[in-house]
Amino acid sequence: MELSERQKAIIEIVKANEPISGDKIAESLGLTKPTLRSDLAVLTMTGVLDARPKVGYIYSGLSFEPLLHEQLFETKVEALMTPSIIVFPKTTVRDATTSLFMYDSGSLYVTDETTGDLIGLVSRKDLLRSLLNNQDNDLSVAVIMTRMPNIIVSYPEMSVLEAGRLLTKHEVDSLPVVEIKGSKKVIGKISKTRIMEHFIKMGSERN
Amino acid sequence: MELSERQKAIIEIVKANEPISGDKIAESLGLTKPTLRSDLAVLTMTGVLDARPKVGYIYSGLSFEPLLHEQLFETKVEALMTPSIIVFPKTTVRDATTSLFMYDSGSLYVTDETTGDLIGLVSRKDLLRSLLNNQDNDLSVAVIMTRMPNIIVSYPEMSVLEAGRLLTKHEVDSLPVVEIKGSKKVIGKISKTRIMEHFIKMGSERN
Repeated sequence: MELSERQKAIIEIVKANEPISGDKIAESLGLTKPTLRSDLAVLTMTGVLDARPKVGYIYSGLSFEPLLHEQLFETKVEALMTPSIIVFPKTTVRDATTSLFMYDSGSLYVTDETTGDLIGLVSRKDLLRSLLNNQDNDLSVAVIMTRMPNIIVSYPEMSVLEAGRLLTKHEVDSLPVVEIKGSKKVIGKISKTRIMEHFIKMGSERN
Repeated sequence: MELSERQKAIIEIVKANEPISGDKIAESLGLTKPTLRSDLAVLTMTGVLDARPKVGYIYSGLSFEPLLHEQLFETKVEALMTPSIIVFPKTTVRDATTSLFMYDSGSLYVTDETTGDLIGLVSRKDLLRSLLNNQDNDLSVAVIMTRMPNIIVSYPEMSVLEAGRLLTKHEVDSLPVVEIKGSKKVIGKISKTRIMEHFIKMGSERN
């Protein structure tokens, strides 16, 4: 659903002149009031305009409601990704756990020291399991990490809906974001936390 | 925005008789076509009805789009909460960590053995910190838990929007759900994971 040019013009007139009667709006547009009846009905029904008896039309401050779906679900990962914390295969479990606390991150991405390519992922859960089972905190993360190609990745152009589906399907807390589809260069991460915050922020702005 | 009774009646008539002309709809309702013009404009603009030239009105199969906001954000915590994993203050860090893996949970709620009241919360992060810093896995969770009243709780009637705001504001992964507002009886938990899944599910159903 998209507003017509005439409906958009009505909104601008109301914004500039509120409260304004239907007759005045029609006059501004050089049209008759009956011609505008359907447009005004659509604009008040969708909550863009308020119609106050004996006062006139007022702009509600709400943007056009049905755009909601697009804003909510088609937002790109690019707009929501956060910096990723990188460690190397030789990093010890102890040092990795310390990094995780230092940056308050849920997972660490392991890249090759030479090429910079993503080769593994270590989650809070992986570290917890390792610390519970081993006395040896000097174990390297390479031993406990999940390895490529078993890591699900995202890329900047992916929609938040698609990223959320992958997080849900694979039951992980975040996805590494790689430069472009097929690349192994990590440029950030997209987490459940960020996705939930996105939805909550959108919902809060509209109330 | 809510549909009027007349608009709902129009939808039912179209569903039963599609394709149907505006004149026929007016006839069914005992009204004139000009009377219905605004209603038909609202229903076609919002995508509930399709108006096909020389054919008539057809039901699009879409539910009423602007209800989206309500379904998305006003869903109650009750509908989304999951079972909580309970431990007691004397439970050791080792046993608590094992429970966390067994139930694949992000956090454990600590209740009083006698009263059943919520007295604390232990997160994956709390356990990880304890295991990293102590050799003693026989420490009791009472020593490391976050204590009431420093725990933010939810209740069944809370909206998902409000629960999400609390999770975001307090930077936690889940909230214990108590019986009613003010109670200390835990009946479940509401997590970031479940809230994100709710939004992703809603977005997927509408595509």
